[in-house]
Amino acid sequence: MTGRFISLEGGEGVGKSTQLRRLAEALRGRGLEVVETREPGGSPGAEAIRRLLLEGADERWTAEAEALLFAAARADHVARTIRPALARGAWVLCDRFLDSSLAYQGGAGGLGGEAIRSLHEVGSHGFLPDRTLLLELSPERAAARLAVRDAAGSDRIGGRGADYHAGVAAAFVALAEADPARFRRIDASGDADAVTARLLSAIEDLS
Amino acid sequence: MTGRFISLEGGEGVGKSTQLRRLAEALRGRGLEVVETREPGGSPGAEAIRRLLLEGADERWTAEAEALLFAAARADHVARTIRPALARGAWVLCDRFLDSSLAYQGGAGGLGGEAIRSLHEVGSHGFLPDRTLLLELSPERAAARLAVRDAAGSDRIGGRGADYHAGVAAAFVALAEADPARFRRIDASGDADAVTARLLSAIEDLS
Ligand SMILES: Nc1ncnc2c1ncn2[C@@H]1O[C@H](COP(=O)(O)OP(=O)(O)OP(=O)(O)O)[C@@H](O)[C@H]1O
Ligand SMILES: Nc1ncnc2c1ncn2[C@@H]1O[C@H](COP(=O)(O)OP(=O)(O)OP(=O)(O)O)[C@@H](O)[C@H]1O
Ligand SMILES: [Mg+2]
Ligand SMILES: [Mg+2]
Repeated sequence: MTGRFISLEGGEGVGKSTQLRRLAEALRGRGLEVVETREPGGSPGAEAIRRLLLEGADERWTAEAEALLFAAARADHVARTIRPALARGAWVLCDRFLDSSLAYQGGAGGLGGEAIRSLHEVGSHGFLPDRTLLLELSPERAAARLAVRDAAGSDRIGGRGADYHAGVAAAFVALAEADPARFRRIDASGDADAVTARLLSAIEDLS
Repeated sequence: MTGRFISLEGGEGVGKSTQLRRLAEALRGRGLEVVETREPGGSPGAEAIRRLLLEGADERWTAEAEALLFAAARADHVARTIRPALARGAWVLCDRFLDSSLAYQGGAGGLGGEAIRSLHEVGSHGFLPDRTLLLELSPERAAARLAVRDAAGSDRIGGRGADYHAGVAAAFVALAEADPARFRRIDASGDADAVTARLLSAIEDLS
């Protein structure tokens, strides 16, 4: 039996990484093999590309080169980690996937969705998750969560401006509305237990 | 006045690197600023990607990831090195460019020309040379030149089989025939002086 591929998406600080760990734990409790992974990265080649993407100055890469590097990392991640895990029946939970490229590089970054999709078509033959869980939280609450997490009270999320984050959130919602079979929009407010319960019920039909 | 962008293409051992140096010298003798460059590489970001492409085992990258990395390196090379040089009036001579990706990854590698072109469209907005000089030499003569160059008599070119090299050569010819305004097919046999003279006459109209 082949596994299931589930991606978690949403803006910064909504709780993707927290919920990914909790979901993995819950699914393992049901006896499933679960692979936890994240983008960019998730395979040796993709991690090497991640280092190229994250090192150096902010303007090291043009938007175009950056989108190609993300797509190259994703192609490696899909071919070397995700597909083999699914083939042996594992469930794969991924912290960000194609939709983050569409919302960030395609939307806010200005390249457009068609360009990002064409790269994914060449790199990964258009491979998509069985389910994408979009965690939605107001920018104010996400900023408050990040302020707690990022000790020195850095306001990374505030630093970019409310307009930017509203744009990203709107891009995610548009993606979800365009593909309701794959997406589930999840209210990410409230305590972590409540959110995990919502996520589990949003993948119940996949078992 | 904006400069000119000229690429040299052809199979291994036909004399691209030798002729690039000679062409650069001849054009400098006419008082032009000449930038000599090569792919993959030619800018700091692209050289970092080149290292990823060349290090590690043969099967480190899938064909898809490799094509995306080549396109990312090319996007950086075009944006950071080639376009700025042309803007200040320099002539840019490049040892391999898009057509090598089309002939190798697109043709022999099996991805197809349309996929390679779509990556170039996203990465470099379809930017093309003003002139592409295709050096043509029989595989036997190219192998003989490489045997002299690569001391220990290694037969890199023979190692891949005559069929492979015939396929690459045929792919280059098809590209040239499809775009006669940009391409010139150059007989690369005979001594280096004779070949340089042919190349110079094939770019005379660009001055
Ligand atoms: N339901 C919750 N209630 C309160 N705090 C939470 C909740 N979920 C997560 N947090 C806390 O909020 C912070 C951000 O969560 P997390 O790191 O999981 O977000 P993220 O979406 O992965 O962010 P990033 O995009 O930056 O990776 C963490 O400190 C986490 O402990
Ligand atoms: N016209 C010529 N006659 C004889 N030998 C030549 C001629 N042109 C180049 N050579 C020699 O042939 C060898 C291959 O030439 P060169 O390295 O320029 O080829 P190349 O097309 O750049 O190959 P590669 O694709 O491997 O980079 C070198 O040793 C070079 O000195
Ligand atoms: Mg996270
Ligand atoms: Mg050479």
